[in-house]
Amino acid sequence: MSHSDAQPPLDTFAAAVAQARRSAVLGSIDALLGWDERTKMPPAGGSHRADQAAALAVVVHRERTDPRQGERLERLLDDPRARQGTPQEQATIRLLHRDFVKQARLPARLVEELARTCVEAQQAWSRAREESSWPVLEPWLRRMFDLKREQAACQLPDLDRYDALMDDYEPGARWPAVAERFARLRAGIVPLVQACAAATRRPSDALMRRQYPLAAQRRFCRDVAARIGFDFDRGRLDTTDHPFCTTIGPDDCRITTRWDENFLPTAVYGVLHEAGHGLYEQGLPRDWFGLPPGEAASLGVHESQSRLWENLVGRSRAFWDWCFPLASAAFPGALADADAAAVHAALLVVEPSFIRVEADEVTYNLHVMLRFDLERAVVLGDLDIADLPAAWNDRFEQDFGMRPPNDAVGVLQDIHWSAGLVGYFPTYTLGNIFSAQLMAAAERDVGPLAPQFATGTFEPLLGWMRRHVHAAGRMLESDPLVERATGAPVSEAPLLASLRARYGVAHGL
Amino acid sequence: MSHSDAQPPLDTFAAAVAQARRSAVLGSIDALLGWDERTKMPPAGGSHRADQAAALAVVVHRERTDPRQGERLERLLDDPRARQGTPQEQATIRLLHRDFVKQARLPARLVEELARTCVEAQQAWSRAREESSWPVLEPWLRRMFDLKREQAACQLPDLDRYDALMDDYEPGARWPAVAERFARLRAGIVPLVQACAAATRRPSDALMRRQYPLAAQRRFCRDVAARIGFDFDRGRLDTTDHPFCTTIGPDDCRITTRWDENFLPTAVYGVLHEAGHGLYEQGLPRDWFGLPPGEAASLGVHESQSRLWENLVGRSRAFWDWCFPLASAAFPGALADADAAAVHAALLVVEPSFIRVEADEVTYNLHVMLRFDLERAVVLGDLDIADLPAAWNDRFEQDFGMRPPNDAVGVLQDIHWSAGLVGYFPTYTLGNIFSAQLMAAAERDVGPLAPQFATGTFEPLLGWMRRHVHAAGRMLESDPLVERATGAPVSEAPLLASLRARYGVAHGL
Repeated sequence: MSHSDAQPPLDTFAAAVAQARRSAVLGSIDALLGWDERTKMPPAGGSHRADQAAALAVVVHRERTDPRQGERLERLLDDPRARQGTPQEQATIRLLHRDFVKQARLPARLVEELARTCVEAQQAWSRAREESSWPVLEPWLRRMFDLKREQAACQLPDLDRYDALMDDYEPGARWPAVAERFARLRAGIVPLVQACAAATRRPSDALMRRQYPLAAQRRFCRDVAARIGFDFDRGRLDTTDHPFCTTIGPDDCRITTRWDENFLPTAVYGVLHEAGHGLYEQGLPRDWFGLPPGEAASLGVHESQSRLWENLVGRSRAFWDWCFPLASAAFPGALADADAAAVHAALLVVEPSFIRVEADEVTYNLHVMLRFDLERAVVLGDLDIADLPAAWNDRFEQDFGMRPPNDAVGVLQDIHWSAGLVGYFPTYTLGNIFSAQLMAAAERDVGPLAPQFATGTFEPLLGWMRRHVHAAGRMLESDPLVERATGAPVSEAPLLASLRARYGVAHGL
Repeated sequence: MSHSDAQPPLDTFAAAVAQARRSAVLGSIDALLGWDERTKMPPAGGSHRADQAAALAVVVHRERTDPRQGERLERLLDDPRARQGTPQEQATIRLLHRDFVKQARLPARLVEELARTCVEAQQAWSRAREESSWPVLEPWLRRMFDLKREQAACQLPDLDRYDALMDDYEPGARWPAVAERFARLRAGIVPLVQACAAATRRPSDALMRRQYPLAAQRRFCRDVAARIGFDFDRGRLDTTDHPFCTTIGPDDCRITTRWDENFLPTAVYGVLHEAGHGLYEQGLPRDWFGLPPGEAASLGVHESQSRLWENLVGRSRAFWDWCFPLASAAFPGALADADAAAVHAALLVVEPSFIRVEADEVTYNLHVMLRFDLERAVVLGDLDIADLPAAWNDRFEQDFGMRPPNDAVGVLQDIHWSAGLVGYFPTYTLGNIFSAQLMAAAERDVGPLAPQFATGTFEPLLGWMRRHVHAAGRMLESDPLVERATGAPVSEAPLLASLRARYGVAHGL
């Protein structure tokens, strides 16, 4: 009698699911600790918050690596009867096992060192950026990349180290395919940036730099987020320094933004971006919360949803045809002499700049590709940490035609590497690629979108994303998911076409 | 070689402290879950929040009842060398052991049943109060009192069941002494209430019922809380339905209030009350966070601090001599024709009413004593749950000269019993008694307080409380603590004298 016959697979499945849910519920408490830290916590509360997060992390890691869970999942994988379950059940077994193995392969020492180094490297990063001093950060980045290489070797020893790290954020993504896709995108973007720079017709964002009172911005942004479908019964909008979206429970998704009284797009596009993430989280199958069918497919797919609402919807002329009267009522002073066309035109400036998070939609992906290439070179040992600032500046000058005047606006600008997020950057551009392909497919299915947006009708687009993207949870990796949703292989072509159409017209190309 | 020699006591002590702190840090996460639930959580988030709290409670209970901790504490108690520690160290061993034994004596089944019944009984209470329907709540209260009797028998079997329960909130308090003290207080309050009712000069609160814009209330209340010493670097003020103060960490204490645009005292005295609790929490020895020397002495002592700032400071004429110009600037419309004397007079209305939380300072303690007597009778089996509404109404009529028209404003008004808080009510009146005795002693030591308040000088009073009350943590029980601080046995006389002086004058007695 084989071991797998000892217990009916349904009981084992139920026990595995219960344990995974318990881990997820405890893990979701960490989301609240993080949200509160970044939105509400009093200034002096940070030290105890770190203690709380560390104590909870120990508990969650213990739950996630409970050897009995490993045994259950092995048993289910081996049991032919378990393969008769629903697709959700089969994906649950397969992915919980995959996650378990990746967690269990990490030695406790490495988990602890990574956690501690993350905290310390981020503190060093803050100082380094403030002082624009690379030497302050260098030893911490060296240590972090060493630890990340070790993590990669432990978790997915059969993969290229960089692919092993990227797999944490974009399961299934591999360097050769991603790099080829990016090269084709780059080949289309570089001439577009040059053409925009040389255009005689150049949009100006002066209209957006008038005075937009903050109280009115708050009401306006909340109204817009609700109108595109963000459910405030199951979510909130708060203020923070570095906007994010976080999920605290299946009915509790919170978005955040910054506000700039003299630059309206900061808040409007911050909220549209985070609300896009939020719509995805609110659209995941809630009964599967904490299990793979209820989780996001990847960070790239997540970003596809945020960029879709931010750029493809929110920067469209039709969106402003609907939205301008609302904006005009909210900001009667600033928009007294404007109309939808003027606002729309002011949002389409293309201009090389040093800071990724402030970059326009066209140059943005060049920022990402630079990081993608450099971080891979460091992980594989082709680039020494000591040479990173020079490599950054050389590549930046090559791509943007200007050299960062200091490291604060160069290699020190992003927190990601200091936070242990290596292999994360490519998901931003993958998200942009997915977003345009999904948008085009949705339009093919639900009819022309512009007339819908112009009347504030967003349900058909959202409904399509719910059915074709959100409902799938993490059951497919991103490429197969996008292919199934759109009926075509993933390609950068829709994104290039969309950028050329929108920014080309605005620049009279 | 005895067991206690096996390990140096300092190592055992360090291990016991580390374990206790870990439990406290995890426990403090629950405070954030609760704060968020009552101030920020989106409407639909409740069900997952209950899951989070339950999962965390299991973890915390496991930490708190770890048998190795019990062994450490036994070893330390038995070790003569441990008795050579500082008073803080000795109190830590003694009280951690006491807490451990009380926790460990609870069967897991009872812990779980109490937790579940608390949730379900509170839901029943909400329905019952809404519908003013006693039968909806009766079976839940019967079950709750059964469980609480069982808890008392498990935890402190040598005590009277009611005393065993009261010990959770007011360690060391025993019925005979408390009841005697309350009887003497009652003997002084009843004639004062009657005299106020019969007075020809009757204060009116009409001035407080004008329009006080909420935005101005928010700024005003925050300023006042900061002025009395509440540290907003280590705390926050938020909005809620049922005001509370909660501590999320040694440098993170959060107070909450309600706002009523047409009744200023709701927010002002809500904030002063909760800020009083907050000043105590912020004054506890922060290096002992999570251990007895860093914990509050009792709920009675906690209430002494909140009532002190709310009533003895905040309702004094001198306080308004300082505060009136601020209030007048904040509410120029409502207070255009008023002065400090007018505001002060409007705050001293004495009027029997059905609802405890809305009661004036003089009649308040009669509400408490009614609950104290009834809950003890139920616990001891002298009063059947079925007879509780009639007993309530009879006693209320006897004390207040009027009968509750329905149970919603009678026996159903408080959530406490449904939340498992039996033996909690007396701490409210103990707090009032302590507050007046502490205030009188502070004034004896730091000089006349009225001239200080009149210039907005509250540091001497707060400093006295810091030194004599806050610094002691939980090292003394409340009676010895107040006796040591004031140099006199605990007595209701200072409270009676204070009430007579302030309310007597206001009523021309």
